[in-house]
Amino acid sequence: MPRCQRALIVGAGLSGSLLAVYLARRGYEVTVVERRGDPRGAVSSGGDRSINLGMSARGIRALHRVGLWDALAGRLVVMRGRMIHRPDRTLAFQAYGTRPDEVLHSIRRNELNAVLVDNAEKYAGVRFHFGQRCVSVDTANVTVTVTDAETGAETGAETGATRTHHGDFIVGADGAFSAVRQQLHRGRPASLRREFIDWGYKELTIPANDDGSARTPIEALHLWPSDGGLVVGHPNIDNSITCTLLLPLEGASSFATLSDPRSAAAFLAARFPDLPELIPDLAAQYDAHPVAHLVTIRTDTWHDRDRAVLVGDACHAVTPFYGQGMNAAFEDCLVLDECLHRHPDDRAAAFAEFQGLRRAHTDVLADLSMRNFVELRDRVRSPWHLARSRADLWLNRLFPTAWRPLYAMVSHSTTPYGDALRRSRRQNALLTSAVVGAGAVGAGAVAATVALRRMRKGTL
Amino acid sequence: MPRCQRALIVGAGLSGSLLAVYLARRGYEVTVVERRGDPRGAVSSGGDRSINLGMSARGIRALHRVGLWDALAGRLVVMRGRMIHRPDRTLAFQAYGTRPDEVLHSIRRNELNAVLVDNAEKYAGVRFHFGQRCVSVDTANVTVTVTDAETGAETGAETGATRTHHGDFIVGADGAFSAVRQQLHRGRPASLRREFIDWGYKELTIPANDDGSARTPIEALHLWPSDGGLVVGHPNIDNSITCTLLLPLEGASSFATLSDPRSAAAFLAARFPDLPELIPDLAAQYDAHPVAHLVTIRTDTWHDRDRAVLVGDACHAVTPFYGQGMNAAFEDCLVLDECLHRHPDDRAAAFAEFQGLRRAHTDVLADLSMRNFVELRDRVRSPWHLARSRADLWLNRLFPTAWRPLYAMVSHSTTPYGDALRRSRRQNALLTSAVVGAGAVGAGAVAATVALRRMRKGTL
Repeated sequence: MPRCQRALIVGAGLSGSLLAVYLARRGYEVTVVERRGDPRGAVSSGGDRSINLGMSARGIRALHRVGLWDALAGRLVVMRGRMIHRPDRTLAFQAYGTRPDEVLHSIRRNELNAVLVDNAEKYAGVRFHFGQRCVSVDTANVTVTVTDAETGAETGAETGATRTHHGDFIVGADGAFSAVRQQLHRGRPASLRREFIDWGYKELTIPANDDGSARTPIEALHLWPSDGGLVVGHPNIDNSITCTLLLPLEGASSFATLSDPRSAAAFLAARFPDLPELIPDLAAQYDAHPVAHLVTIRTDTWHDRDRAVLVGDACHAVTPFYGQGMNAAFEDCLVLDECLHRHPDDRAAAFAEFQGLRRAHTDVLADLSMRNFVELRDRVRSPWHLARSRADLWLNRLFPTAWRPLYAMVSHSTTPYGDALRRSRRQNALLTSAVVGAGAVGAGAVAATVALRRMRKGTL
Repeated sequence: MPRCQRALIVGAGLSGSLLAVYLARRGYEVTVVERRGDPRGAVSSGGDRSINLGMSARGIRALHRVGLWDALAGRLVVMRGRMIHRPDRTLAFQAYGTRPDEVLHSIRRNELNAVLVDNAEKYAGVRFHFGQRCVSVDTANVTVTVTDAETGAETGAETGATRTHHGDFIVGADGAFSAVRQQLHRGRPASLRREFIDWGYKELTIPANDDGSARTPIEALHLWPSDGGLVVGHPNIDNSITCTLLLPLEGASSFATLSDPRSAAAFLAARFPDLPELIPDLAAQYDAHPVAHLVTIRTDTWHDRDRAVLVGDACHAVTPFYGQGMNAAFEDCLVLDECLHRHPDDRAAAFAEFQGLRRAHTDVLADLSMRNFVELRDRVRSPWHLARSRADLWLNRLFPTAWRPLYAMVSHSTTPYGDALRRSRRQNALLTSAVVGAGAVGAGAVAATVALRRMRKGTL
């Protein structure tokens, strides 16, 4: 029997640690290097840039496949729909779907990461190295050189002890600003689009009450829409809610102008009237947390021969507005595993097929996520949006197999993103035809009625 | 009097060396570091990736401003129009314009670069350091660290003696894959689009005859259009012509499939029938020269406070199909100099104004350059294109102030690119109205004539 193939994964975040499980089950030796500390040691830190996660069908399927979905029992909060916090302090609930399984599951990123690392380490061939900053990636010789993260950060890449890992291939699971991607693209005609949006975000936390109860209904994704501002809240199992405040980076009422925490808190109280009572230390939290940015990454070069491949944000970072970033990254792991299964002796073919199967769909997801940003920002509270959203659910109830809202296909199915978008467009075209047809019938009916009346009156 | 401000320019290519002249005249001390050797030492090497240059109005103005246009006398070949080499071996000439000054000037990149460096060095405050590879750029402390280019390339960045230059600000004139840009964007929400086209190119040279005469008319840009292939030739003062062969990178009849030089030469002979007699050693040249790629760069972040700014390809690389890459880079030098003049005590404001004035126009140039790629590739030989091109010139003769073809505004004027495009669109709309109006008048005239005839005949 040949020796084990060795995979070098850069990044022990969500996609890196789940992929370690997939590869270990396929018989690979897996080494994972990660700049940050072990997620099992770190206290789930408020204030970092952790936008909580809404696990949906794709993520669940990818965890199920390797027996990890059950490992999350007791760590998830079900979200049955969106809870809209209106400017008049009333709440409006919009269900995510019509079926009991059409829900999302909220979990803290750090907690999910810890479960994945814990389970990956149960496989004999998997080794994690935390606190190791990657200083160079060599796709020709298939090596990754790391240094102690602290030392490296203080003194620069050129000093401090380094250690070089050798493997048969490298996986870049190192996020939107991937070092592996940079090396993989060097000297090759690799196109890249890196697009930041002109809004940023800060994390804020709604604590539980002193008796441990929730301050606002817990089984929902909370939304505070507003002109030029948006708050999104994910529930936690301790009845707290992790919120993300989104504001423009520049201009009037932006993170740039609202640098004083007291005036920021006053601004937030005016825009989101129930927020100050839900977050008593609003100004202090605003002051303590940094502003983070949101980026979309698209690229046409996901792999280098059989030597290196990218997964997750490294090849397709999306904005969080469809709640699909982690779900798409987990789906990557499942699809890449299937490609490796289909090409057991030709890893280059497996990597090429992986990119071929995924890229068009993740590009669609990037577009959908930006579209949802605009929708969340501007339309959630509009009567038109509510009417359309209800019409979608109503059509789905009437025609459960023929009509599936786009949101349901993206979040509650594993239909590839591009196929979901195409089907949604066909449905909309059909609906337009039906409305126009009904209009024509109606106009015909009116004409016929008028004619009948005139006939009755003898005026024809 | 305060001490001189010190500029650190990374890159002694065309924009870096011209900007050194501009900054020296403004009283700055200028240090320029460059990875390659001194262009005055290097033999003008055939076969490198040097697509020759067509100097037009913008480049000329930027050189004039600092007294350098005359320094090029005797080194330029005038190009009065395009010489189309048709598949039937006939030649067709299309003039670039209607006025004597509506011409382009061909010059070898290396020769122009040498003149610029030579003239920049005449200023006391200017120092060039060739063969120095930039290993790190620190915009916070305004330092650039370099190492000997040979050593660095052989042994990696971590060994070899390094030297650190200090300055008041850094200019990234280091091309499409700018190291300064990478550092300037690090940790900031800087969007970037890097787009390669799916065609590549190889350089080929048509030598002069043994008696020194030209093998084909010399005062023109030569074009060999074809389905799925294109050759462009720039004349040299020694009567040779430097050609660029453009082919798809992948697929049938691509650089990937035409890897054997003999089959490549056969393919070229079939597509471009007069090429083999113009280039007797076609197969050998094809074999000897590497395939190069073409990239477009767009970014929204051209500077970092008063510490660093990008010019030329580093912030707006374009494909060469409008012949404007160098011209736009030279225009950058002129505009940046004007901004520094307007904000003598606020370099951050000067840099911000520079980006504000230039970015929208260079983005338009990127689009126009790609549009011209499609035009050169598909349309140059079509009767429709010739008719339109002639109509453009004819309208320009009839209405010399009202009608200027887009090509003339881009190449023969210094109207900002975006303004040129807008004016061209207005002209086209006007032409459409005129044609429609003339049509209406014509239809009215026909109706009137018919009516008159009927009146004459007494049938009305």
